Amino acid sequence: DPEPIDLHVPDNYVQHTLRTQKELPPITWSNWWRELQYLTVAILTITPTLALYGVCTTTLRWETALFSVFYYYVTGLGITAGYHRLWAHRSYNASRPLQYFLALAGSGAVEGSIKWWSRGHRAHHRYTDTDLDPYSAHYGFWWSHIGWMLVKPRRKPGVADVSDLSRNEVVRWQHRWYVWLILGMGFALPTLVPGLGWGDWRGGFFFAGALRLTFVHHSTFCVNSLAHWLGSTPFDDKHTPRDHVVTALVTIGEGYHNFHHQFPMDFRNAIKWYQYDPTKWFIMACRAAGLASHLKTFPDNEVRKGQLTMQLKKLRRTQERLEWAPDSNELPVVTWESFQEQSAKRPLILIAGFIHDVAAFLDEHPGGRHLLVKYIGKDATTAFFGGVYDHSNAAHNLLSMHRVGILQHGYRQGADDRAVPPAQRLRIARY
Amino acid sequence: DPEPIDLHVPDNYVQHTLRTQKELPPITWSNWWRELQYLTVAILTITPTLALYGVCTTTLRWETALFSVFYYYVTGLGITAGYHRLWAHRSYNASRPLQYFLALAGSGAVEGSIKWWSRGHRAHHRYTDTDLDPYSAHYGFWWSHIGWMLVKPRRKPGVADVSDLSRNEVVRWQHRWYVWLILGMGFALPTLVPGLGWGDWRGGFFFAGALRLTFVHHSTFCVNSLAHWLGSTPFDDKHTPRDHVVTALVTIGEGYHNFHHQFPMDFRNAIKWYQYDPTKWFIMACRAAGLASHLKTFPDNEVRKGQLTMQLKKLRRTQERLEWAPDSNELPVVTWESFQEQSAKRPLILIAGFIHDVAAFLDEHPGGRHLLVKYIGKDATTAFFGGVYDHSNAAHNLLSMHRVGILQHGYRQGADDRAVPPAQRLRIARY
Ligand code: HEM
Ligand code: HEM
Ligand SMILES: [Fe+2]
Ligand SMILES: [Fe+2]
Ligand SMILES: [Fe+2]
Ligand SMILES: [Fe+2]
Repeated sequence: DPEPIDLHVPDNYVQHTLRTQKELPPITWSNWWRELQYLTVAILTITPTLALYGVCTTTLRWETALFSVFYYYVTGLGITAGYHRLWAHRSYNASRPLQYFLALAGSGAVEGSIKWWSRGHRAHHRYTDTDLDPYSAHYGFWWSHIGWMLVKPRRKPGVADVSDLSRNEVVRWQHRWYVWLILGMGFALPTLVPGLGWGDWRGGFFFAGALRLTFVHHSTFCVNSLAHWLGSTPFDDKHTPRDHVVTALVTIGEGYHNFHHQFPMDFRNAIKWYQYDPTKWFIMACRAAGLASHLKTFPDNEVRKGQLTMQLKKLRRTQERLEWAPDSNELPVVTWESFQEQSAKRPLILIAGFIHDVAAFLDEHPGGRHLLVKYIGKDATTAFFGGVYDHSNAAHNLLSMHRVGILQHGYRQGADDRAVPPAQRLRIARY
Repeated sequence: DPEPIDLHVPDNYVQHTLRTQKELPPITWSNWWRELQYLTVAILTITPTLALYGVCTTTLRWETALFSVFYYYVTGLGITAGYHRLWAHRSYNASRPLQYFLALAGSGAVEGSIKWWSRGHRAHHRYTDTDLDPYSAHYGFWWSHIGWMLVKPRRKPGVADVSDLSRNEVVRWQHRWYVWLILGMGFALPTLVPGLGWGDWRGGFFFAGALRLTFVHHSTFCVNSLAHWLGSTPFDDKHTPRDHVVTALVTIGEGYHNFHHQFPMDFRNAIKWYQYDPTKWFIMACRAAGLASHLKTFPDNEVRKGQLTMQLKKLRRTQERLEWAPDSNELPVVTWESFQEQSAKRPLILIAGFIHDVAAFLDEHPGGRHLLVKYIGKDATTAFFGGVYDHSNAAHNLLSMHRVGILQHGYRQGADDRAVPPAQRLRIARY
């Protein structure tokens, strides 16, 4: 048995590699043609060209149209449910027949063998957004979508262990016969079915073959580009991955990518039932049919923690942007005599131990000017807190904004809720 | 000039009144017919009966239908923009012509004079949900919708000053001619317009008169019932008022009632442009036309504080429901020797000064069992925090759940973020 390739990786592997490993020079106008990977370029240009030619020259029959869409989902699921969630992330166990089905379906997507694909993808997760990530989103939308495949990798992707896949019989079988499998599943089968089925050989080749493959390609590529670019970050914002329903629609459910990078070994990408994740539904159907088992989920407690943190981050920005009442220790301590004396000059009212200057509020008071004037130089605590009118929490918050002093020996601070404005009873604190 | 009626109200007015003022006995099956207010009962039963009879016996002409809907909005706005936001809450200033228009339109809603209505409504705000509130929602949906009008008030509503309205010429004029105004605006005008306009006297009386009035009545009543019963509390939850778009649709925009009770002198009920508040739009149009001025709004800073508090309340419940990592001072302090010794018996890993038991996680680790085993009895801080793999915040949170001890002299607590799981860096604290 091969031992895991990362077993002896040293403690400073990432920093050391980033610092010392040599890189190929950046792509420029003068060197790009020398740096191209001609096989990938060929596949990714010939396929859409064939598709375009076919669309312009072939009548689309509805049976072929339906079959093409169906085959798009089959080969797409080969990637999402097979390559991605099963082999790259081990998020569930699949029976032998299901594994063969997924390996065959995934071959029809013509994106490299399971082993090659998973090795890159594991590196993508392990070194997300760094130079050891083969499709780092930090180099822009087009790089992560397609650029990284068209030219020679600028660096070796970071170490990622795939010894488990090297031991897997289905993965080995697919790797070995890969060239025949892409020809068979990518072009022969989608030409044969419409050909033998309803005599539409030409439509099969162009629509279910070339056009369908173009869609599958860019659909999968969107997981690396769109999903690192468009949407929200409800679980964590340390890295680029984002959640968006549009990405999900385009990628057979892989669009909840912020969740996925936080919880990569979770067989789900969408956690709510109403979110679009057909890959998850497919896996659940396979479990129901006895073909899949051990569907992994991350503990709900930890998922919610991530969401809570992100919500608190947002609310903390609000908390910081708002103006708050001055605190006891920012205010001058005033004696009763001085309070009386000052009240003759400006409208000061004592409530819950704080002295408030209500000059600006006299004519604004919804309860009327007369009720404020009546309490100038007096303690209005009882009246304010329900004796005359049980003011709203908003009124209490507003009151605190008028604080100008604190009465000496006035109020036992901390003994009473009434000294803390309602909006300041719950605060987001940082540790 | 009359002085405000609440000027000499004592500091303990509310509690004292609730305790000492005598109440009428509760309504029962044996006394209800003696307690009815016959005039209100008559108006609120005859109007819908007429409407029903009319609907069954009269062909509806489309001109009359359109006019009825139009007149519903006119008389409805008389209540919402006039009675409610202008006179009861003084939330803006209206020119003399606008005041006459609103007084006339409001009369067509047949809900009592401005003065009587505002006095009750101010008591409703001042003593919301208590026995001094004439239509306290604590007595149930039907009581606050209509019950409170059908029987004699069980108590005098709490003191509420309306001396400003007693001084208002338009209000006095309306109060004086009120009986003639309801006959004219409630029935004569809506009969005349279709009658003279397109010869539909009968349709005018039944549809624009009786049926329209039935709708205006129950639409307004919904502000006291539905708006205290259905929806959410985004600004405060101390009292019953709630926000709901359905209530808004039914009440010409008065459905954002949670906001309204927090900020009653704000001329808006809905603060977002896309929420349905035609009464607000009408007032803004009047301002544009030079008929209204001094539209009051509550300071945005304080509105947001209310929202923040409610959101924090909700998140705090989440925070309390989740399980959190044990704190430093809940964990045993372990020496290096003891850590080594224990590690021979169970898989202990040291990270950021904490000792973790990863037995339950060995086979779950997405990075593989081998990487954990390698660090048993060792310090994996560097490897965990990016040396080998820069774990996600979720992984760090999960790690903290495996804490079983703290290393003696191990880590300067507080010196480093790595000792605090990301989800515990922001916490909602109570003061
Ligand atoms: C300087 C401090 C005060 C501030 C900032 C203040 C603020 C407010 C605010 C914002 C309202 C609107 C309703 C609400 O939000 O609950 C209000 C209403 C009222 N206030 Fe005050 N108030 C103050 C002092 C007082 C005092 C000392 C009294 C009584 C002696 C009083 C009596 C009333 C009454 C009766 C109302 C109800 C008005 C109505 O709904 O008709 N207020 N006050
Ligand atoms: C006992 C403490 C540990 C816990 C709780 C833990 C947890 C996790 C979790 C939840 C992941 C999934 C990806 C993520 O959320 O970031 C992960 C991945 C990983 N962990 Fe750990 N880990 C621990 C210790 C270690 C150590 C000591 C190493 C390295 C020496 C390590 C290496 C890795 C690697 C390389 C991956 C990436 C797997 C991949 O994406 O292919 N882990 N770990
Ligand atoms: Fe990604
Ligand atoms: Fe992934
Ligand atoms: Fe209300
Ligand atoms: Fe109101």
